[in-house]
Amino acid sequence: MKEETWKTAITKVEPNKLLLRGYRIDELMGNITFAQAVFLAIKGELPSEKEARMIDAMLVSSIDHGVTPPSGLSARTIASAGAPLNAALAGGILAISKHHGGAIEGSMKVFQEAVRRKREMNKTEEEMATIIVTEYKEKNKRLPGYGHRIHTKDPRTLKLFQIASDLGIAGEYVRMAKAIENAIEQNSGKRLPINVDGAIATLLCEMNFPHELANAFFIIARIPGLVAHVYEEQTRMKPMRFINPKDHEYDGIPERKL
Amino acid sequence: MKEETWKTAITKVEPNKLLLRGYRIDELMGNITFAQAVFLAIKGELPSEKEARMIDAMLVSSIDHGVTPPSGLSARTIASAGAPLNAALAGGILAISKHHGGAIEGSMKVFQEAVRRKREMNKTEEEMATIIVTEYKEKNKRLPGYGHRIHTKDPRTLKLFQIASDLGIAGEYVRMAKAIENAIEQNSGKRLPINVDGAIATLLCEMNFPHELANAFFIIARIPGLVAHVYEEQTRMKPMRFINPKDHEYDGIPERKL
Amino acid sequence: MKEETWKTAITKVEPNKLLLRGYRIDELMGNITFAQAVFLAIKGELPSEKEARMIDAMLVSSIDHGVTPPSGLSARTIASAGAPLNAALAGGILAISKHHGGAIEGSMKVFQEAVRRKREMNKTEEEMATIIVTEYKEKNKRLPGYGHRIHTKDPRTLKLFQIASDLGIAGEYVRMAKAIENAIEQNSGKRLPINVDGAIATLLCEMNFPHELANAFFIIARIPGLVAHVYEEQTRMKPMRFINPKDHEYDGIPERKL
Amino acid sequence: MKEETWKTAITKVEPNKLLLRGYRIDELMGNITFAQAVFLAIKGELPSEKEARMIDAMLVSSIDHGVTPPSGLSARTIASAGAPLNAALAGGILAISKHHGGAIEGSMKVFQEAVRRKREMNKTEEEMATIIVTEYKEKNKRLPGYGHRIHTKDPRTLKLFQIASDLGIAGEYVRMAKAIENAIEQNSGKRLPINVDGAIATLLCEMNFPHELANAFFIIARIPGLVAHVYEEQTRMKPMRFINPKDHEYDGIPERKL
Repeated sequence: MKEETWKTAITKVEPNKLLLRGYRIDELMGNITFAQAVFLAIKGELPSEKEARMIDAMLVSSIDHGVTPPSGLSARTIASAGAPLNAALAGGILAISKHHGGAIEGSMKVFQEAVRRKREMNKTEEEMATIIVTEYKEKNKRLPGYGHRIHTKDPRTLKLFQIASDLGIAGEYVRMAKAIENAIEQNSGKRLPINVDGAIATLLCEMNFPHELANAFFIIARIPGLVAHVYEEQTRMKPMRFINPKDHEYDGIPERKL
Repeated sequence: MKEETWKTAITKVEPNKLLLRGYRIDELMGNITFAQAVFLAIKGELPSEKEARMIDAMLVSSIDHGVTPPSGLSARTIASAGAPLNAALAGGILAISKHHGGAIEGSMKVFQEAVRRKREMNKTEEEMATIIVTEYKEKNKRLPGYGHRIHTKDPRTLKLFQIASDLGIAGEYVRMAKAIENAIEQNSGKRLPINVDGAIATLLCEMNFPHELANAFFIIARIPGLVAHVYEEQTRMKPMRFINPKDHEYDGIPERKL
Repeated sequence: MKEETWKTAITKVEPNKLLLRGYRIDELMGNITFAQAVFLAIKGELPSEKEARMIDAMLVSSIDHGVTPPSGLSARTIASAGAPLNAALAGGILAISKHHGGAIEGSMKVFQEAVRRKREMNKTEEEMATIIVTEYKEKNKRLPGYGHRIHTKDPRTLKLFQIASDLGIAGEYVRMAKAIENAIEQNSGKRLPINVDGAIATLLCEMNFPHELANAFFIIARIPGLVAHVYEEQTRMKPMRFINPKDHEYDGIPERKL
Repeated sequence: MKEETWKTAITKVEPNKLLLRGYRIDELMGNITFAQAVFLAIKGELPSEKEARMIDAMLVSSIDHGVTPPSGLSARTIASAGAPLNAALAGGILAISKHHGGAIEGSMKVFQEAVRRKREMNKTEEEMATIIVTEYKEKNKRLPGYGHRIHTKDPRTLKLFQIASDLGIAGEYVRMAKAIENAIEQNSGKRLPINVDGAIATLLCEMNFPHELANAFFIIARIPGLVAHVYEEQTRMKPMRFINPKDHEYDGIPERKL
């Protein structure tokens, strides 16, 4: 039985010629940013100028969050045992899972379903948000993308929404996310602000990304941060140390302005 | 015994405030590109305008190379077995090793040692290159960063050197890499052109990166390509298929101009 | 705030003394087999003599299945790129997922639910099996643990059930699994025999393992096989070869008797 | 160009027939232990009765060492983020590296070279040991396999050597390892006893294993322990907790006799 030739639509490789989604890579080099290339590789088309700026801001927002996230701790633990950089990064990525970064995908599902039902049921965002929050309350489930264990007013969230608004990218999904934030407060009396995962989720929805790719953005954004942690562990710490996730101090460059 | 508080110099995390290498992340967002943030996270300082453009071009150059590299094949194989995206990416990164991407680090070591010895011995690039090539020949070892199993005139290499030259980044290391290319031809009669690994290696040397971080750049650049492959595998292929690395065809968008 | 001391019930480590689930490891050494220690480590108690023999047979049954399973292919692909043994094994384990080994957990859930409902509804195995098969048919879902892409009469399945029967371990779950096999045939006219995943699932049910640990057994069993594949790749093959999962031949020791 | 059919000597897979190194797997099941199958899969031949008992004792000795080794910590950290079992185990294996388990391979190299040179130079074990220890001292390097951060008189080491002696497996390599232990004491005045890594290394040498497979044994032995840790983390701990490697307590079954 002849095996069937399989097909791929990402990159065409010929001797001395490489096409990424139809564009010559050497033509892309020097003409688009890496963030634009990320969008092109994953979505198949170049972003608009506004989308490009939005993606850049989203990737920058998630590049690092210090030493306590599990991805950094597993990467450092593996590096501390003497493993090479790529093994430590692989171990870091394995921790970007349900409870760490996973809320982006969860939020996208909530927002996409909420907007779909709102349209079908011909409701306002506020009405739909009240329905959703009540449903979650009844099932005793927590809405992903709201609240943070450290930040009450996450500067990244505020900035993402401001940039989205300035660029004209904020629309139906951002309105829905904010309506849900308000509905949570009315329902429970407690303000659980949209967190950075929820904010990224709304903006990926605005740019028509499938929720299956939510985790991809977080991983792409966080890898450079993990590289910095692994390299710091390798060059500054003793091997096989006990890494206490709580007992640490920042001794880097003090606050400075751009 | 009191455990010592450990130190980190990467990110300072306080409630509602995040400093990456001293800069507020919300100030960086919208003001720098992701490639600039990558440089900042890893090196601790923002790149110059020229370095930023160089890094962008380097990351774009390595974003994907089709379905045959082992990183894509291991990621697709894992995805085909039903694993989630992060597991497939981790498996892809584990293949970015000695024979795949590893030549960047190998080349950096060669170029850094060659330039150091050239200075110490007060030689020209050509003289030093001849010495190095002869030494490798005697030890019957191959110089990393020269020759490619597909490309004889890699368009990425040409473009990287052109951009480096336009930006004024090309210097001693680029000259040394080209002198070695010539010395190989004189010694063996065969032209083994600098490949994209070798080109990236020279430019990382020009920007004073330690060779320990060579692999980091390749991994950061390639993750989005791996995401595209995993997503294509998940959405377009049957699970548990036999993935023959040779019997495939490109059926994506035909060649187009920017 | 004082952090709470966390608790572990697996191994007590003191200077010059190690207790695994209460037993001195140096007393276990030489007195129990590795398979017994596996059972002890995971379940917290030593297996009975019969359980010990059952576990040994189950682990032996799954130690390897040649070069086509995705775990072996991802491990070989990573090794072929020059990665160390542990990275290749990690990549192999990542492929032991939903469609590869995952049927053991799926089957355990089916069998545990079937036996629970049978008891509650006071039905025979045959009646319950008919209900289950009809339900799956209506939902157009496939029952995990039945049928194999290569074997129609898997010798491992036959031997596992024979050993279980000889040891007196086969009981309610084995009867239920066979009743479902028959009900599938009556319902569809096609015989889909219980496969090795299904057989292992019934026996883990008979020994009261939680389905969450199903994958653990398969991974423990398969690691030595993966080691053999990685070592063969490293010592016998050229690096960076294209691994075609179909075009291979066995050239090892011909069939022999114990 | 016709691709060459590649060869494998591990497992022959035919419909309804599976041969591991020439033996039918269904014949092996019930007739050999898992430890014997491990030896067969990796070495290609069944162990002798004595080797089988030695391998069992070695695997049991390394099955777990509590919560402080990096492999357990990375596996727990990944599990705590909500990842599935196989991802947590993969992250654990990635930490079994240079400083954790890696001493077995390092020791095997030392012992194999020491015995080879002893034979060539026609020396006694004592003379050769003195030469080796002096060489390491001059290079200011530590001999792998001696000393332990917790145990001064490791009960596992004592038991391994006793079993090896009872079985008649202890020979030239065990004598060499002990001669080096004495030579270290004479040279430095400090007794650094052979640790469990060193003991396993000598016995793998006695059974003619290549040092490239040292890590394989440790990984095979430790996986069940890692499974126990991941399962305990998943079932007993809150997700996303901060895992302090020092602040823990054993609350399992108190010491008991076999």
